[in-house]
Parts: sequence; C-alpha cells; structure tokens
Amino acid sequence: MTVYPVKGIRLASAAAGICYKDRDDLVVIECQAGSSCATVFTQNKFSAAPVQLAKVHITQSIPRAFLVNSGNANAGTGEKGMKNAVQCCELLAGVLGCDVSEVLPYSTGVIGEQIPVQVFETAIPGCVKRLSEEANAWERAAKAIMTTDTVPKLLSRKAGIAGCEVSITGMAKGAGMIRPDMATMLAFIATDAVIEQTTLQQLLNEATRISFNRITVDGDTSTNDACTLLASGAVDMEPVVAGSTEYAQFSTVLTTVMQDLAQAIIRDAEGATKFITINVAGGKSEADCLAVAYTVAESPLVKTALFASDPNWGRILAAVGRAPVSTLDINQVNIRLNGVAIVTAGEPDSAYTEEAGMQAVAGTDITVDIELGGSAEAVTVWTSDLSHEYVRINAEYRT
Amino acid sequence: MTVYPVKGIRLASAAAGICYKDRDDLVVIECQAGSSCATVFTQNKFSAAPVQLAKVHITQSIPRAFLVNSGNANAGTGEKGMKNAVQCCELLAGVLGCDVSEVLPYSTGVIGEQIPVQVFETAIPGCVKRLSEEANAWERAAKAIMTTDTVPKLLSRKAGIAGCEVSITGMAKGAGMIRPDMATMLAFIATDAVIEQTTLQQLLNEATRISFNRITVDGDTSTNDACTLLASGAVDMEPVVAGSTEYAQFSTVLTTVMQDLAQAIIRDAEGATKFITINVAGGKSEADCLAVAYTVAESPLVKTALFASDPNWGRILAAVGRAPVSTLDINQVNIRLNGVAIVTAGEPDSAYTEEAGMQAVAGTDITVDIELGGSAEAVTVWTSDLSHEYVRINAEYRT
Repeated sequence: MTVYPVKGIRLASAAAGICYKDRDDLVVIECQAGSSCATVFTQNKFSAAPVQLAKVHITQSIPRAFLVNSGNANAGTGEKGMKNAVQCCELLAGVLGCDVSEVLPYSTGVIGEQIPVQVFETAIPGCVKRLSEEANAWERAAKAIMTTDTVPKLLSRKAGIAGCEVSITGMAKGAGMIRPDMATMLAFIATDAVIEQTTLQQLLNEATRISFNRITVDGDTSTNDACTLLASGAVDMEPVVAGSTEYAQFSTVLTTVMQDLAQAIIRDAEGATKFITINVAGGKSEADCLAVAYTVAESPLVKTALFASDPNWGRILAAVGRAPVSTLDINQVNIRLNGVAIVTAGEPDSAYTEEAGMQAVAGTDITVDIELGGSAEAVTVWTSDLSHEYVRINAEYRT
Repeated sequence: MTVYPVKGIRLASAAAGICYKDRDDLVVIECQAGSSCATVFTQNKFSAAPVQLAKVHITQSIPRAFLVNSGNANAGTGEKGMKNAVQCCELLAGVLGCDVSEVLPYSTGVIGEQIPVQVFETAIPGCVKRLSEEANAWERAAKAIMTTDTVPKLLSRKAGIAGCEVSITGMAKGAGMIRPDMATMLAFIATDAVIEQTTLQQLLNEATRISFNRITVDGDTSTNDACTLLASGAVDMEPVVAGSTEYAQFSTVLTTVMQDLAQAIIRDAEGATKFITINVAGGKSEADCLAVAYTVAESPLVKTALFASDPNWGRILAAVGRAPVSTLDINQVNIRLNGVAIVTAGEPDSAYTEEAGMQAVAGTDITVDIELGGSAEAVTVWTSDLSHEYVRINAEYRT
C-alpha cells in the first residue's frame, strides 16, 4: 500500500525503553503553524491522565505537537500520573520551543503503573531532530504505537477537492479493550487540506460515529481512547466549508479511511479468527438497532460459536431476545447468516438446512443480517470472535 | 449433605434418550392436591415454547405436575415446537388422569432443534409408576436436569415455623447462558409448609431478586429460565401469611436455599476456576449499583485477569468507569480485592503493593468491594472467571 506523506505534518519515533525492549515506543508528531486540530476522547469516567490533560490543553492553545507512547497507559495513576504527564509535555515543549499547552499527550498500554519520565527526557531530543514528512516516518510511527496489535494499521488516500489533490493519511492502534465510545484507542489522521477547526471537528465527529464508534472486541471501553484529526493547510486551496460539495467529497474519503482503520483493528483483534459484520435494520430507533447489534456482537456464546464455525443460530436468537430494547415484535424478526435465512418472521426458516448454515460460517468473514421490522433505521457494527488465543493473551498480559 | 424429603411432593426420572445416552434426561414432579405453586420465567423475548405454554397453563389451572427434560431446549422451534410441547403435556396428563393445563413443561439444552415426542411417550408411563417422595428421587432428578453442569445442585434445609418443622428442598441446573432475568435456568424448590399461592409467589419473587437474579456467567439471559416453588401443605399447621413472623422466618430459610443454589451454579460455571463475589455500595440507586456490579462481572478483561490470578485492578477501574450510570464521582470510589485496598478516593491506594494484590487473588474465592459514595444502597452479584475451558466448552458444544 502506498503511504502518501501529508505536507506540513512531520513525525519521528524512538525506542525509549518505556516498557518494551528493542522496539520503538515513543512518537512525536508536529504540525506546521496554521494547522487545525480536531479531537475526540474516551467517555470512560476513569479517563487517563494524558486524556484529562489533553482536554485542558485544547482549551488553552492550538495544538502544535503530539507526544505518544505505548507500553504504559498512565491511567489509574492519580496525582503523580498527572504530574508526570505535564512533565513529559514540558520536555517536548522545551525542545520545540513552544508553550506546554501546545503539546497534547497520548499514552497506551498497561493501566495502573507510573510512566518513567526519565526515558522521555532522554529520547525526546533525538526524536525531534529526526522529524520528517516522509512516508517511512508514518510507517515507523504506526509500528511504535502498537501494544497487543500484531500488525500496524496505516491507511492513506488521495482526494480531489475543488480541483486540488489532497492527502489523507491515518494510523490507529488497538486490539483489546475495544468498544470505543467517542473514539478508539489512539488514532491519528492527517490531511494537508485547508479546513478550519470547527469544520474539522464536525468532519471528525461525523466520521467517528460510523467508524471507530461501531466496533467492539470485548465491550471494554478504554480509559485512553483518543482520535485526532489534523489539517495542515499546506495545499494552496480555498478552505473546505461545511455544507459544500467539497465538504461532502472530503467527508466521504475521510470516512473510508477511518472505517478501514476501524475494521483493521477488528481484523487484528486479540485472538480473532473471524471478522464479523452485524447489520441491524428496522428497529424503532437507531439506539434500538445499536442495542441489538452490540448485544449480539458482545455475547460470549455467539462469539465462541462463530470461533468454532458453528452456525448455532439459537444463540444469536437468544441474544436478540435479551437485547435491552423497549419493544420487540418477534414475529417480524428475520435473521440471515452470510445470506442464508435462518429465522424468518420469528420462526426457523423452513428452507434452512444445517449444511447451508455450516457453509455460511465456514469462512473468515461472516455477515449477520438482523431485521427487526419495517422502519428505515439501519446500523452496522463490526466485531471479532472469542478464541482460546483471546483468553491466553489476556490471562498472560502482565506476565 | 442430607436431603430432606418434602411430604406431598413426588419425583421420578428416566433415561428417555432425548439427546444423551446412558443417563437420565426426563423428570416428572407431582404435587398433592391442595398444593400451591409459584413461578417466575425468563424475560428473554424469544422465550421457549415450554415457557410460553407454562405461562398459559398457570392462568387456566392450579399446577399438579411438572414435566422436565434436558438435552433439548425446545426454543426457536416455531409452531411445531409449541405443538410438541402441548403433546408432551397431554401425554403426562393422560397417564396421571388430570387436565393438560395442570401440567407445566420445562426444557433445557440445545436451542433450535425439535424435541422427539416419541421418546416422551415411551418414557412417561414408567416414570409415573416410580414417583416417590424419597430423598434419592430428588438426587436422581437433580442429575437428570443437568446439561453442561458438572455437578448436580441440590440443597435442603429444615425450618421451624410456628412450632412446626417444615422442609425446604430445591434443585437447580445451569452453568452457561447464565444471567437470569426473573429466574435461572430451571430451579425447583419445594416445601411441605402450608402457604397459599399469592403469599408463595411473593416469597418466590423476593428471594429470586437477591439469589438467581444476582448471578451472571456470561451475561447471556437464557430463553428457558424458569424457577418454580411448590408448597404441598402436607404439614399440619396454620398457613404462613404475609407480614407475619412466620413469613419472615420462612423467607430467611428459603432465601438461603436459593442463594446457595445460585452460588452453586456459579461455582460450576462453564470452565470456572474462581468464585467471584462483587459487592457494590453507595451508588445513587440500586440500579446504579447493579449496573456497576454487572459491568465488572461481565468484563472479559476482568474475568481473564482473575482467571490468571492477576490483580490487574486497572481493568476493574476501567470497567467501573464505563458502567452505564448517569453520574459517578470518581473521587469517592474505593475498591478492595479480598480486603486489600487498591483504589481509595479514586486514586491508587498509597499502601498497595503488587505482592499484597497477588496474594489477594491467589485463592479460589475472590471478593471485590466497590464503594461509589455515601448512600445506603448495596448489592451483591456473583460471577465466575473466563478460562480456556470456557472457550473449549462453548466452541465444542454442538460437535
């Protein structure tokens, strides 16, 4: 895959030794003066120190630099964790010659341990010296932010906006503790298009809603989720404004990049052997459709059955039946597994055979279509299966 | 453990061959004329045919007999499943010489397959001939209703009520698809006390709320949950009436029996290696306390960490932080693991050591105490861990 550099956005990584050995675990991102920045953060009430600090900094200044580390989440670390986060931002601000409030911090990794500030102090100056717009700086950074991920998630597209060619390049990390609620565990997307902050935030909110906010591995919303969208404005063009054709064009490409990143997280989910798409349509509201989709997506019994390539549709039916929706007319419920009708009008489909069901779930990609009734509401949620490997990874995470 | 027979309640089991080979899978329970019966059923909207039929029958007659099978849930089986359930009740009613509406059906096992009515027809007459009040009839029945259970759940107590000695004996089955919502997957409790139906139902509702409705293995509410309480009235005593001292005495013993049965389900949960008690206190409402308790209890990350005997309290904190409660003042949150303070006033406890944490979760029984604030609300939920064996059992369930 081609990674398009984004004019005005420079990155560098370093092996600071925060937790891992012999691999990069620190990333600095810098955007040129005049860039806009939009952010969404986790809604977990125990949000991490860097999330809390970033929320304060964006009210004080326009962000210029982003300090990211893997191996330690700096979450559940109390006052000391907050002091450490401030100190790390000060270190980067000192080297760059900017105000501390122009630096946003991001951390991901183990919860409940203090971050080693000393290794930041050692690694930051060299990192800043190597800041680069080049594609390989993106590639190295996408690897540096990984924790239990097995592959980096990096996507890049060109878009023609108002006769200009702009780049949209983004990276994300995440494999477990994934049910983003506003954003997922660390995603950075950058463009060289000209978009002022309010419009950029609107674009990010809209795309997040149907990308990172539509995936779940384990239902466990992280304390550190954060998604950031940068627009350097390096391309010589008129600003993209809300409601325009250019806005719609840009939004389409941005949403594609973010959905592809979100889906890459699910394909790399802890222990995953299946990529499961759950479409729910016809509920009384979008919230009802989502409630059914997430109940099925997070049911351990559905997930273990699909891991076993077992078309145990009774478990899907039981999950639909326990979903927290106010009303459900089971006589209107249709369920299909990769196109094979299993339940029609609330009853086992008369044409269903176990052979057809087995074939439907044999492959890696499984689509579950659930129709609840006649409304026009429709949502899609992506999830993974629950395997032996999932238990192994999460039972051994700290050992 | 001593099993006390319940005067006026007779049971028998048979190896009908519904699904398993060489083991009992059919139980008939009969209560003497004048008995009262109280029931609670699953709130899963896709409730099974026997649940739907039982709900109709109790509006038509006072139950006299109960037909229970394991190996097949008769759920998701459509019109044919309902016809089969009716036919099975008719078979038992025919042999007993009672009306079909005096028979309540119960099924548990695989969802989505039709029950073989023929084997019921063959097995029921012999079963009825062997109906007995003896303790070993209870013991055999408690084994016959098992599915993925590895041990039968049978408990028995004596209570002194108004100068009379009464028996309370109960059995339950369940190990997976356990988050009862009104009752758990098949429980039968019987007493020879004299209690009329309305009072009996009140006793059952109150005890269910803090026993079977406080356990979760996987969050998956079953389509077949049902809990039945019988009072034969065989003891020569005044009826137990609501509001009396005798009511309170009986309620205490009944609740103990039902909590012990509920806890036995958790101890035998699929793949379980830990028995986890989650106490949540001080929330704005009981609903808020329960939301926090269930979010922690059903978090795959918390469950895998405890399986690994890893005091990864960051995952507990993250689960508390994402619980669906309206407000949460994290500065008031205290968390203890088997008495070891890990979070105090929303911050890592200053005296906490990893050694103390390791010791706290080393054993089989782990208590998580979570304080949210100053209110008098308090709930207890029991759950199990998530092990390799859980995945194996549920991936191989139908193979």
